[in-house]
Amino acid sequence: MKWKPPREWEQLRQGIGCPICEDMRLEENRFSFKVAELRQGIVRLAKNQYMRGYTVVMLRRHVNELFELSAQELAEFWQDVARVARVLYDLYQPTKVNYLVFGHHCPHLHCHLLVHSYEDDPSTPVDMNAETVLLAPEQYRDIVAGMRRRLQVSD
Amino acid sequence: MKWKPPREWEQLRQGIGCPICEDMRLEENRFSFKVAELRQGIVRLAKNQYMRGYTVVMLRRHVNELFELSAQELAEFWQDVARVARVLYDLYQPTKVNYLVFGHHCPHLHCHLLVHSYEDDPSTPVDMNAETVLLAPEQYRDIVAGMRRRLQVSD
Repeated sequence: MKWKPPREWEQLRQGIGCPICEDMRLEENRFSFKVAELRQGIVRLAKNQYMRGYTVVMLRRHVNELFELSAQELAEFWQDVARVARVLYDLYQPTKVNYLVFGHHCPHLHCHLLVHSYEDDPSTPVDMNAETVLLAPEQYRDIVAGMRRRLQVSD
Repeated sequence: MKWKPPREWEQLRQGIGCPICEDMRLEENRFSFKVAELRQGIVRLAKNQYMRGYTVVMLRRHVNELFELSAQELAEFWQDVARVARVLYDLYQPTKVNYLVFGHHCPHLHCHLLVHSYEDDPSTPVDMNAETVLLAPEQYRDIVAGMRRRLQVSD
């Protein structure tokens, strides 16, 4: 697969046609369910739960790189991420949490949160989409409800 | 490869025998060269430059997860990371910077910084150690010097 062509990428960088801006506030979109809107981050549970607990925190504002954020935005965004990580830690008791900011497909700043356990191979490159594992609607609802309770936000 | 056994992992989590605590301040260690000591982060250029510019920022204090940091540490750590990312962005003009906190081998908080270009495949899981590319000593020195200049820190 190729990177998006330079012209299209430059438009995306500017937020023109940004799919994350478009659908990050929907209760459900193609990829995920909304869990909460925090100070700087919108928290979403991925539909693909091949890696259990897989969650993404999107920055409210369309920004590409960490160094484009104000000091306050940067601090609050990572406080939001840390808060979600704490919830995933309590829910899944992992060996390690991963905090991964890529943006290869869409340069709107977002952080993937993944939890690992002793059963995982620590030397394998992380690929949360290596397989697709979809849950039943009530299972997603239970996870989202559990996260909201621990985040102390309402439905 | 297996995850470290629970007992060994628990000790590492506590900082007992932590290799990052041991060697993150050395001018040169097995994996990297020191670039700078910032407020919360020690910046090191990886010897393996298979991914050009590959840099790691280690937290000064031994901490496993983002939610264990104080608000000030968290804010300053990410300011340090953002500052290094800005330097790599200026040096390499990438399509996207990656900011990756794993810790599968050592749970001392550190962030891998990688730059991507149009030539990369955005759908391939990132593996900065897929190959080993070592440079000549003067090439490392040049990159480190260039980074220090842009970070406005002295040798």
